[in-house]
Amino acid sequence: MKPIRDTFALLAITLAGLTTSQAQDPLPSWNDGKAKQSVVEFVAKVTNSGSPDFVPPAERIATFDNDGTLWAEQPLPVQLFFALDRVKALAPQHPEWRKKDPFKKLLSTPKEEKVAVTEPELMQILTATHAGMTTEEFEKIVKDWILSAKHPVTKRPYTEMVYQPMLEVLAYLRANGFKTFIVSGGGIEFMRPWTERVYGIPPEQVIGSSIKTKFELRDGKPVLVRLPEINFIDDKAGKPVGIQQHIGRRPIAAFGNSDGDLQMLQYTAAGSGARFCLLVRHTDAVREWAYDRQSHIGQLDKGLDEAAAKGWTVVSMKNDWKRIFPSENK
Amino acid sequence: MKPIRDTFALLAITLAGLTTSQAQDPLPSWNDGKAKQSVVEFVAKVTNSGSPDFVPPAERIATFDNDGTLWAEQPLPVQLFFALDRVKALAPQHPEWRKKDPFKKLLSTPKEEKVAVTEPELMQILTATHAGMTTEEFEKIVKDWILSAKHPVTKRPYTEMVYQPMLEVLAYLRANGFKTFIVSGGGIEFMRPWTERVYGIPPEQVIGSSIKTKFELRDGKPVLVRLPEINFIDDKAGKPVGIQQHIGRRPIAAFGNSDGDLQMLQYTAAGSGARFCLLVRHTDAVREWAYDRQSHIGQLDKGLDEAAAKGWTVVSMKNDWKRIFPSENK
Repeated sequence: MKPIRDTFALLAITLAGLTTSQAQDPLPSWNDGKAKQSVVEFVAKVTNSGSPDFVPPAERIATFDNDGTLWAEQPLPVQLFFALDRVKALAPQHPEWRKKDPFKKLLSTPKEEKVAVTEPELMQILTATHAGMTTEEFEKIVKDWILSAKHPVTKRPYTEMVYQPMLEVLAYLRANGFKTFIVSGGGIEFMRPWTERVYGIPPEQVIGSSIKTKFELRDGKPVLVRLPEINFIDDKAGKPVGIQQHIGRRPIAAFGNSDGDLQMLQYTAAGSGARFCLLVRHTDAVREWAYDRQSHIGQLDKGLDEAAAKGWTVVSMKNDWKRIFPSENK
Repeated sequence: MKPIRDTFALLAITLAGLTTSQAQDPLPSWNDGKAKQSVVEFVAKVTNSGSPDFVPPAERIATFDNDGTLWAEQPLPVQLFFALDRVKALAPQHPEWRKKDPFKKLLSTPKEEKVAVTEPELMQILTATHAGMTTEEFEKIVKDWILSAKHPVTKRPYTEMVYQPMLEVLAYLRANGFKTFIVSGGGIEFMRPWTERVYGIPPEQVIGSSIKTKFELRDGKPVLVRLPEINFIDDKAGKPVGIQQHIGRRPIAAFGNSDGDLQMLQYTAAGSGARFCLLVRHTDAVREWAYDRQSHIGQLDKGLDEAAAKGWTVVSMKNDWKRIFPSENK
């Protein structure tokens, strides 16, 4: 009987070991490889109080781009679908739009067809859909929309078009004393109503582009009214500026996916002490989309060259991620 | 023996009760009275999960003005003393200042005498002393200055001119799950280098006035350079705007001392659910300064009327505070 008992015991230990190691893997949707290893090694060295690279918790600031880094940005950034849906919802109150571009062409083109708009026209669309209401009214509009809207290709809610491996990185960093921030070119008030629920990131840790607001009394009640005027564009060289305005410290880790994130990564990398920069590269045309150097949306060109030169981590979605979306079978 | 033992037991219980109750008083520098009671009652009702006024921790946002609310602002706001000291420190690099007002009059007037400057002259002084360097260079200048500078009247470091009862409120709120923010008309980058050490408020929870910054490469290193151009004035109707930009939620508690804080308190009070607004009134000419409706610095006039009408808490420094500064004998 003895050999059999030993075999059983050995088997039990092996299984227990496997279970424990799987349960403890903080990044289960990542394939083993250099990308995953680089994240784990960075976290280990900045949190080990005996390490020369140790960073006190208060300074463990990590910043994440949103579109293309935390959720899908194809075939268009989600906020543009929001703006188009708002044009349709508001059209009955604006009969003049039926005769006036860009609204006329948006309203008369079938949903499946693309509409070309110029940059000034885009600003007109954003202004008409994002300004004129109080901040609290806008918050409710976004909350209602994001609960019901569906991605045009996958027909899933946009909040399910988030990247499971990145949700794991966010949770892993927070479990290790990091404060996680979003630093996005998208609208700050378009993100805040749902980032806490979806990413675990509270409104005060969301940085983005903004329009001006004005304090006023409406029916005797103090409110902030959203004005049709740009306040701040949180993109490219604006990202480090936005980071300093909101956080007041240089991040020690930054995550992006496009050349719009390049200055944020450069700024992060240039601080003293251990630093971590990561670019998500869209390489999976089957499970997501494949695009980089030539893309009109989320172009990643200079960033790839600089990542290679500086030794930043470049994630291949196809090779490094076991699954991309939370709903996918593992 | 029995009665004696009982007496001893009773005495022991009484003493233990006293010690415990004193150790547990979260606001030991406050005299018992309506002001102290209003703070304690508010915290109790929003943190009691059985209360109809319960507020989830994520929404427990409290905002504090700085000058005159957390530290002394007389005879001048501290940042102006900083600017004047910087003019003197920089004068050797600017020989032209000897012949050019406002620098000429600042440099030629003895320290004890007052110098009148116009508003454009003040902007010139602020620009000359607050812009032209990187954000990290400015942080070091402020850190070095605040460690060595002394208040002109008390000869104590400015960071000891903070109000002990307000430090207790900050700690008490945080111990009850609140996130505490500074919302000041003062410069955001003038406060951040020392608010964590002095108030326990990290840089990312400091909101203030700011100048513009620009991302650039200096000797190949990415930095943010401070420009001589106003970005945002976080005062009066600007305070709710700054709160929304940085926090993205309406506070449930707000603390101020002047009409510059009025809109912040109005905005806070107008939210749904339990709200708390408090004004610190400078009534103690012996231990601090006495000023309100007629003062050029920290004028509190409309705020007093509105506080009376709305039932906001008004603290009399003279009557409600046992001690004002941390160094005072209790």
